[in-house]
Amino acid sequence: MSLRRGFEEDELRARVSRAQTLMNAQGIAAMLLTREPDVRYFTGFLTRFWESPSRPWFLVLPAMGDPIAVIPTIGEKLMAKTWLTDIRTWVSPDPVDDGVSLLADTLREVAGFDGRIGVPSGPETHLRMPLHSFAALQVLIAPLEITRAEGIMRTLRCIKSDAEISKISHACDIAGRAFSRVHEIAREGVSLEEVFRRFQMLCLEEGADWVPYLAGGAGPMGYDDVISPAGPEPLMAGDVLMLDTGLVWDGYFCDFDRNYAIGTPAPEAEAAHAQLVEAAHAGLEAAKPGMRASDLWQVLADICGVDESFGRLGHGLGMQLTEGLSLSYDCDDVLRAGMVITLEPGVQLPGGGIMVHEENVVIRPTGAEAITGFAKPKLPEL
Amino acid sequence: MSLRRGFEEDELRARVSRAQTLMNAQGIAAMLLTREPDVRYFTGFLTRFWESPSRPWFLVLPAMGDPIAVIPTIGEKLMAKTWLTDIRTWVSPDPVDDGVSLLADTLREVAGFDGRIGVPSGPETHLRMPLHSFAALQVLIAPLEITRAEGIMRTLRCIKSDAEISKISHACDIAGRAFSRVHEIAREGVSLEEVFRRFQMLCLEEGADWVPYLAGGAGPMGYDDVISPAGPEPLMAGDVLMLDTGLVWDGYFCDFDRNYAIGTPAPEAEAAHAQLVEAAHAGLEAAKPGMRASDLWQVLADICGVDESFGRLGHGLGMQLTEGLSLSYDCDDVLRAGMVITLEPGVQLPGGGIMVHEENVVIRPTGAEAITGFAKPKLPEL
Repeated sequence: MSLRRGFEEDELRARVSRAQTLMNAQGIAAMLLTREPDVRYFTGFLTRFWESPSRPWFLVLPAMGDPIAVIPTIGEKLMAKTWLTDIRTWVSPDPVDDGVSLLADTLREVAGFDGRIGVPSGPETHLRMPLHSFAALQVLIAPLEITRAEGIMRTLRCIKSDAEISKISHACDIAGRAFSRVHEIAREGVSLEEVFRRFQMLCLEEGADWVPYLAGGAGPMGYDDVISPAGPEPLMAGDVLMLDTGLVWDGYFCDFDRNYAIGTPAPEAEAAHAQLVEAAHAGLEAAKPGMRASDLWQVLADICGVDESFGRLGHGLGMQLTEGLSLSYDCDDVLRAGMVITLEPGVQLPGGGIMVHEENVVIRPTGAEAITGFAKPKLPEL
Repeated sequence: MSLRRGFEEDELRARVSRAQTLMNAQGIAAMLLTREPDVRYFTGFLTRFWESPSRPWFLVLPAMGDPIAVIPTIGEKLMAKTWLTDIRTWVSPDPVDDGVSLLADTLREVAGFDGRIGVPSGPETHLRMPLHSFAALQVLIAPLEITRAEGIMRTLRCIKSDAEISKISHACDIAGRAFSRVHEIAREGVSLEEVFRRFQMLCLEEGADWVPYLAGGAGPMGYDDVISPAGPEPLMAGDVLMLDTGLVWDGYFCDFDRNYAIGTPAPEAEAAHAQLVEAAHAGLEAAKPGMRASDLWQVLADICGVDESFGRLGHGLGMQLTEGLSLSYDCDDVLRAGMVITLEPGVQLPGGGIMVHEENVVIRPTGAEAITGFAKPKLPEL
């Protein structure tokens, strides 16, 4: 718990500088950012208040100079604790003009008469402001034009700094301790609903700031899917129980899972688990800078005996539960040092069920380094 | 805990039918929904998997007939458990065509050659898909046009059914029990960070499915703001501690707070708390169908001695932490039976701090009904 929260101003400034290099290469005079992770990436502004959809928040990143926050007054004091000095506010929600004219003035100021305004528009992005406000903004800033900036934020965010890796790794440690205590909360007769509730409590007790994500499943020959909420059905002898958590420490996620057996598992489930763990180890051995994500997918898919219809077998993570590249047959992204990714092999079991397993690794210059304590082949029995 | 999860199919169908009436009145052939609460509102599709930004999800609601889900394969089995029968899937994420052509085909099928496609675009909405995909979609469906549908989802969702009110009320009960146990976790010398962690554990132990939102603050003369994350500073004698939680049960939020004193509070803080509680009671007495939100704001603002620069003093809630009307000086929305709102008075204290207080009420035909156990005027001492 002695790990420092937040980031040094130098690191945040360096992120801005790298963004500006990419913006200049694309002829973008200013970037308009509207989503929580993008705003936080440059400012360090961390709050759970984004849970409320009622107010838009804007960060304007000029091609030269410091970012400008254009935000609701309710965020002014917290934003003033970041390194930003230019903070412009309005009382939001405003049913007539919810920050749009203030934002338009700011964009005109930094983009001049003919600059192009970039808005992230590629995979995993969206515009977090009402479409009617976006239309009004475009009228107000004309003849300035908004252009789709693809890849700038993704390129920046996919490579993690040492400070970021420490936070993700710390989140992994917390979840690892919680996983090692599942025997305290799960056994035959306890409902999956109760296990979910108690597992989140374990994550918090072990040091999580909060637990935005928990999924799981249970069944004798694997589970139906990996996204369903927990139900009231009790765990039964012979079930395989899977818990997959994305908990957060200082704004950074881990994302991995563990499988358990309730009593003695079916031989097929035991074999599947060993196969999944083997695949994760093979991924750890194989992953290195320069490798294509699709080639790493192939390593996992071959061992698991699945094809592209199974879906991806891993992905990047960091400020979001999933972000960046996909380990899938058609992802040409290349692994680079500083990426943090999940290895998430999956197998089909007889009868239609599946089993999945997930570990987190950092890509280092010479290969991959585990930041989760890789699971053993044998299913832990509860 | 005997409250039933989910909704009867009849209720979900009735929601569709009401939406279609509004769509027909606006000449909309199909609605395209992309956000979690909007998709869930008609389908009952509940999963925490939306935490991952990597895949778009679509619901197409035709002006006549049942909704069509156009979703990633990873959600197929769970969506098949809802009442929907027309479920179309693709393996997502797809770097080239992430559901766009499948969605375009579906929209053309239901909207014919000249129908207008409505997309929610008013306050609190956004389009949860990449802008590059949205642009590609518009090209594919031409000459069909996408129009901004303002108010349809808001009009529908702001009036809660009895089943929805039961879920919100159940969430309030859970939080109420957690608030009554704060003496177990907070005292002089304990850090706010630790209190936040332990309070989330109490919420889970008392029955929350998860705790998406927790904010708070502490200080001898109120707190700086109400959105900051907790820090490592210990609570001190004389501090006022405020905890504000949005916990979820079966997909529905409560949103209220409680203030406590660490030892003996300053007389100003004690007086401020009494004033806040008085304001909440005045709001409970005054609120009734037909009243404008701005008039209810005035009732609270007068007692608290604040003006419009303080921000809103309450809001709707339900499937989201905040949704629907605002209790603010310029919100003309009218209270209607079936709305669930927060009363959230706030006061300024000498020295620049603030104190806030929040309760949840349902608007009934004859007036407001409390669903949180209203706080007493005297600050509970820990």
